[in-house]
Amino acid sequence: MATVASIINRCNRVAFGMRKYSVRAVSLVYSEYGEPIKVIQPTEQQLESPAPNQVLLKMLASPVNPADINTVQGIYPEKPRLPAVGGKEGVGEILEVGQNVKNLSPGDRVVHLTTEPGTWRTHGIFGENELFKIPKELGLAEAATFTVNPCTAYRMIKDFRTLKPGDTLIQNGANSACGQNVIQLCKVWGINSVNIVRNRPDIDKLKEYLTELGATCVLTEEEIRSTDIFKTEKFKRPLLALNCVGGKSALEILRHLGLRGAMVTYGGMSRDPVTVPTSAFIFKDISTHGYWMTRWSKENAESAARTEMFEDIIQLMLSKNIHAPAHEFVKFDQYKNALMNTLSIQGFAGKKYILDFE
Amino acid sequence: MATVASIINRCNRVAFGMRKYSVRAVSLVYSEYGEPIKVIQPTEQQLESPAPNQVLLKMLASPVNPADINTVQGIYPEKPRLPAVGGKEGVGEILEVGQNVKNLSPGDRVVHLTTEPGTWRTHGIFGENELFKIPKELGLAEAATFTVNPCTAYRMIKDFRTLKPGDTLIQNGANSACGQNVIQLCKVWGINSVNIVRNRPDIDKLKEYLTELGATCVLTEEEIRSTDIFKTEKFKRPLLALNCVGGKSALEILRHLGLRGAMVTYGGMSRDPVTVPTSAFIFKDISTHGYWMTRWSKENAESAARTEMFEDIIQLMLSKNIHAPAHEFVKFDQYKNALMNTLSIQGFAGKKYILDFE
Repeated sequence: MATVASIINRCNRVAFGMRKYSVRAVSLVYSEYGEPIKVIQPTEQQLESPAPNQVLLKMLASPVNPADINTVQGIYPEKPRLPAVGGKEGVGEILEVGQNVKNLSPGDRVVHLTTEPGTWRTHGIFGENELFKIPKELGLAEAATFTVNPCTAYRMIKDFRTLKPGDTLIQNGANSACGQNVIQLCKVWGINSVNIVRNRPDIDKLKEYLTELGATCVLTEEEIRSTDIFKTEKFKRPLLALNCVGGKSALEILRHLGLRGAMVTYGGMSRDPVTVPTSAFIFKDISTHGYWMTRWSKENAESAARTEMFEDIIQLMLSKNIHAPAHEFVKFDQYKNALMNTLSIQGFAGKKYILDFE
Repeated sequence: MATVASIINRCNRVAFGMRKYSVRAVSLVYSEYGEPIKVIQPTEQQLESPAPNQVLLKMLASPVNPADINTVQGIYPEKPRLPAVGGKEGVGEILEVGQNVKNLSPGDRVVHLTTEPGTWRTHGIFGENELFKIPKELGLAEAATFTVNPCTAYRMIKDFRTLKPGDTLIQNGANSACGQNVIQLCKVWGINSVNIVRNRPDIDKLKEYLTELGATCVLTEEEIRSTDIFKTEKFKRPLLALNCVGGKSALEILRHLGLRGAMVTYGGMSRDPVTVPTSAFIFKDISTHGYWMTRWSKENAESAARTEMFEDIIQLMLSKNIHAPAHEFVKFDQYKNALMNTLSIQGFAGKKYILDFE
């Protein structure tokens, strides 16, 4: 595969007083579901000027999320019509806008909003309403991973229970990309976060990393079983538990919830279902829920809540309260490494691979 | 044990223009937790006139609920101070009222409201606010079992999802006392009820009984696994599942829930916990909850919602839309039979034993 620079044939034209591009874009396309490195083919496409409500976007960076891999595999509930371009989030710079585009201009930096995939490409034509303008000062990794993990963490903390400063949240898989955002948001909002991770050889290093991010407390799956942190009233009993593991781990965090606590499941890394004792439902009034960012985004595409959330998160990123989770940029022509490694994550924290189109 | 009639020494006196009683009451008292027939002792007590805010009540009938047995066993979350009188619900007739009692008069029929036990007694002194006046026309079994099962069914159907006529509810343990109330309320409110029961030799008789009560559909645990009633759109997918069994049975009814459906657990007869697949939480947005009538009653003791519910249910009982579930009256001096049989229920439907003090 040619590098991005070599295949773009940029033709500057002057027409109606606007710069016009004719761009040869490269997209990561799949025409059948299967293992990403087998079914995905880099494919060239000639892009012309955008239609009246569209813009021509040069992508800067786009992460490879686990859900993106599952989508290509065909095991995700949302199956895009084939052939499809992979990737659902990313940041780009606008090259050209259609004549009816009101709120975006060439040079603006935007993130991709829609739940339809298609961000693993050097350039693309997008509708104005598929994009959200962000400040250029935002870090590239933060911008590229803006719409999924921080938003998932934000909504899960806000939408199921009203947590006040001094309240407690417990989560498993705390080193996941979403978990790292949860830790940082809890710190900003004054919520104590009790963070559960699997034991591992470099556990002290992981505990140190998460503590520096803002974790109030980091415990292994074994340590949480025998902890007395809630009995000694060091922390209030959690009102909210976030679960991305399932099985025994989910039961363990649920067991510590206080009266009327809620557990929100957003992943199932152990592949075991969630088990809840009958007594927890009846006598502790625990409820259990699920969260899926894709559905929330679809249902709130036009909502003030979404704009408010975006603005909140952008401010927290600009003020360095929220950093992108552990990540590594991968040059676009090395995309296969990113695809292969996303579901077999090495290292102490969930490392996110971000395709770099520059 | 003497019969009730023989031990009451009624002394009618005239003082301050009011009839006064001095009553020898018999109560079923336990001074330690344990198997009810071992630890419960009939105990005589002399009752004098009620204090200003109290009434002297002659009990007419009081059921033996499974929770009453568990309370005596000491395995219920609420442990009354010992010695205690068993039983939490029942109906009685007021013999005498204290001078500050405003809304009750001798001869009134009332049900016992508080969550404190103490209804297995021939007579008792109760606070005015522990009692709710009901029409004398209400059937004795309906009145005696008024505050637990019909109210549990009522709240579970109303409080977790908004069901409209034509919507579907699914429940397991549909032949339980609560389940029978659910069936009748669904019929009144135009909700399709899909009712799951265990297979048994007299299954046809049970199906006929529940259908006559108002069940839209009755299926065994085996039949629900392979049913196509939701695929053929004979019924809409249920938005609400009521679970008093747990384990596989709970999973089976949860599996049929539609998008955003809720499962409410109010019992766990199988003693197996509730298991929920991760995908049901994330992609179907299923939530699971618990319901405990005792807590609701405590938290809503003064609420308009409770009065409204009582009035609704009374009207439905008077209009013969709600009947007491299958039951058997047991003379008070035969109380041991009721205690022994409540947790080892025979017969095709959950039969409730009601102590008859007359």
